[in-house]
Amino acid sequence: MSTPFQIDARDGSARAGVLRTAHGEVHTPAFVPLASTATVKTLHASEVSALGYEMVLGNTFHLFIQPGAEHIAEMGGLHEFMGWPRPIITDSGGYQVFSMGHGSVAAEIKRRRDPGKNMIISIEEEGVRFSSYLDGSERFMGPETSMEVQAKLDSDVALAFDECTPFHVERDYTRASMERTHRWLDRCIAWQREHGPDRQLLFGIVQGGVYEDLRAESAAYVSGADVDGVAIGGSLGKEKVEMRQVVEWSLAPLPEERPRHLLGIGDVDDIVHAVAGGIDIFDCATPTRLARHGTALVPEPARRWRLDLTKSEHRTSREPIAEGCPCPACREHTRGYLNYLIRAGELTGKRLITLHNLTFMGELMQGARAAIAEGRYAAYADAVLAG
Amino acid sequence: MSTPFQIDARDGSARAGVLRTAHGEVHTPAFVPLASTATVKTLHASEVSALGYEMVLGNTFHLFIQPGAEHIAEMGGLHEFMGWPRPIITDSGGYQVFSMGHGSVAAEIKRRRDPGKNMIISIEEEGVRFSSYLDGSERFMGPETSMEVQAKLDSDVALAFDECTPFHVERDYTRASMERTHRWLDRCIAWQREHGPDRQLLFGIVQGGVYEDLRAESAAYVSGADVDGVAIGGSLGKEKVEMRQVVEWSLAPLPEERPRHLLGIGDVDDIVHAVAGGIDIFDCATPTRLARHGTALVPEPARRWRLDLTKSEHRTSREPIAEGCPCPACREHTRGYLNYLIRAGELTGKRLITLHNLTFMGELMQGARAAIAEGRYAAYADAVLAG
Repeated sequence: MSTPFQIDARDGSARAGVLRTAHGEVHTPAFVPLASTATVKTLHASEVSALGYEMVLGNTFHLFIQPGAEHIAEMGGLHEFMGWPRPIITDSGGYQVFSMGHGSVAAEIKRRRDPGKNMIISIEEEGVRFSSYLDGSERFMGPETSMEVQAKLDSDVALAFDECTPFHVERDYTRASMERTHRWLDRCIAWQREHGPDRQLLFGIVQGGVYEDLRAESAAYVSGADVDGVAIGGSLGKEKVEMRQVVEWSLAPLPEERPRHLLGIGDVDDIVHAVAGGIDIFDCATPTRLARHGTALVPEPARRWRLDLTKSEHRTSREPIAEGCPCPACREHTRGYLNYLIRAGELTGKRLITLHNLTFMGELMQGARAAIAEGRYAAYADAVLAG
Repeated sequence: MSTPFQIDARDGSARAGVLRTAHGEVHTPAFVPLASTATVKTLHASEVSALGYEMVLGNTFHLFIQPGAEHIAEMGGLHEFMGWPRPIITDSGGYQVFSMGHGSVAAEIKRRRDPGKNMIISIEEEGVRFSSYLDGSERFMGPETSMEVQAKLDSDVALAFDECTPFHVERDYTRASMERTHRWLDRCIAWQREHGPDRQLLFGIVQGGVYEDLRAESAAYVSGADVDGVAIGGSLGKEKVEMRQVVEWSLAPLPEERPRHLLGIGDVDDIVHAVAGGIDIFDCATPTRLARHGTALVPEPARRWRLDLTKSEHRTSREPIAEGCPCPACREHTRGYLNYLIRAGELTGKRLITLHNLTFMGELMQGARAAIAEGRYAAYADAVLAG
């Protein structure tokens, strides 16, 4: 099987390359902004590409619930629907399905009367039954459903349906769940290779919790499967140190030539370490979600790269978020104005900080790609981590 | 007194000209978008000028309550605060103060416990006492307060403090209120000419309700005062026909050479008629407020120029809002996508329709200016009104 991924430069375990998809190229290492609900919240699609992004992530679960995959297919697929002609990766829905609470019968009845939260009704070999947050109706998602939804969305990269176990789950359940996830992977591959859109890529997901042998086993299983890339999933540990260890265990058995996606990780230090370990693609809600709550990303490790603009210390500041940043929040506005906008609940504030945070993440990844190409990634990582 | 307004072309009673302010020129007839809370909601300032707008309207009342005029002065004035280097007109706060309910003592006590709505405590010769919607605290605004706040905001055009009477008010109250508004005008002029910022222009406001003689008397009074322009205020009648009549009565006694602002009117047909009658400047919340609720402006008089994109008939539409419109909502997105975004509560939807509606209003006014300059305004008005 030919891989759609080409590695152009290596620097230690870090790699810079290009992923080729039906809707164009993605230069890696890449951060992928979330367009969970068919929009990068507060931006329209051409603004996201103007920021230099080549791929966004659509959320299978959210789009399945609203407006529905059939509707998006009728509108010409997710690219057409949201006016984004470039690559799209879709998650499998597994993460959302498994982060719901388990419900009692009483809670289930209550839910039908008062929707607003999803709830798992049952997890079986076939898949998962749950009640929708939109109207309380009973819905089902399993490997074939997930692949079918992703086929209707017509994404460039589909992710296999997996159970995402929380970090505190005991070893026995983690093993059983991982093995089911592997069986689900085989069903995803079978469905997708037969019915999926031409040129849609499929990434398998490594699970195995916080257990070294299970991670190794899972990585070997996924690597041996007919997939175009490998994603590392699951709750990756309670502490950053544990998370990095889990990523390392998961990476070790993976073949060099396939693209590697680390799911849901987006903190600056985590990205810098994971790129060093050989991760190619990241997605995370944090940069855009923080923005909507008034927190800007800044090159200051001592603050964990976060500047909370809602704090009163910024009220009278006439400084930009970050000197030299080319985004409109920094070029045209002050911290004081952003503090006011966010506190007054103005959409303009959420939007300006979203533009800033995505500019910041774009520059971080651009810097990483350039450093790997020039064989100076370690120095780049040190500089980022030193601030 | 020299007038800062120059008329470059006339066509019947319609005029095209330019208003010169401390922060630049405004070509008229002009529509002025509302930046009530120091932002044209969903946009940042440079986006508003990119749409071709030369002036925005800041709201004295809202900014007095939050973040406070002192704070904005400390931040360098409203232009600096919001990053808008072009002309700003500020309303007087009168409209907001007088659209509050009158409160009982009980309601007043309740209000202190549970703010959220303003309430008038008393209207006196000195000014108006009310409780703030933000924290229930007692606040005062009179002519001098209003001018002082507008001075701190450092707007290019200040509006005199007036009582805005509802259309159903009886003649005796309307006369008494109008006369008090005239006395307030004199106090505004006295304060502003002594303490106001250099080059800040001051417009007086014509009141007089729906009574022809009172409108004539008020227009004559304001025209005779030391003001740089005249605004027509008040609730202008229950029906459009009545409103146009009131505008006509108010315009008749006005000197040709002063700029004329029609307050709070923004429907397409009303603007087209008022420009024909000799109005130069308009401001209105409607185009941007409608946008945030999912209604787009379209060149269709039969729909009152309004297309409600939340309706299910647009769900599967792959048409743009309006063919040929240069805004990103029309160039890059479908009615179906906008229908989804608005129904899902996505900020991107509010923003895209705001961009569209302000593009529409900008083109309407641009067309009017060109038509007056070329002596074909009647034909232009007919074409707009025929759709």
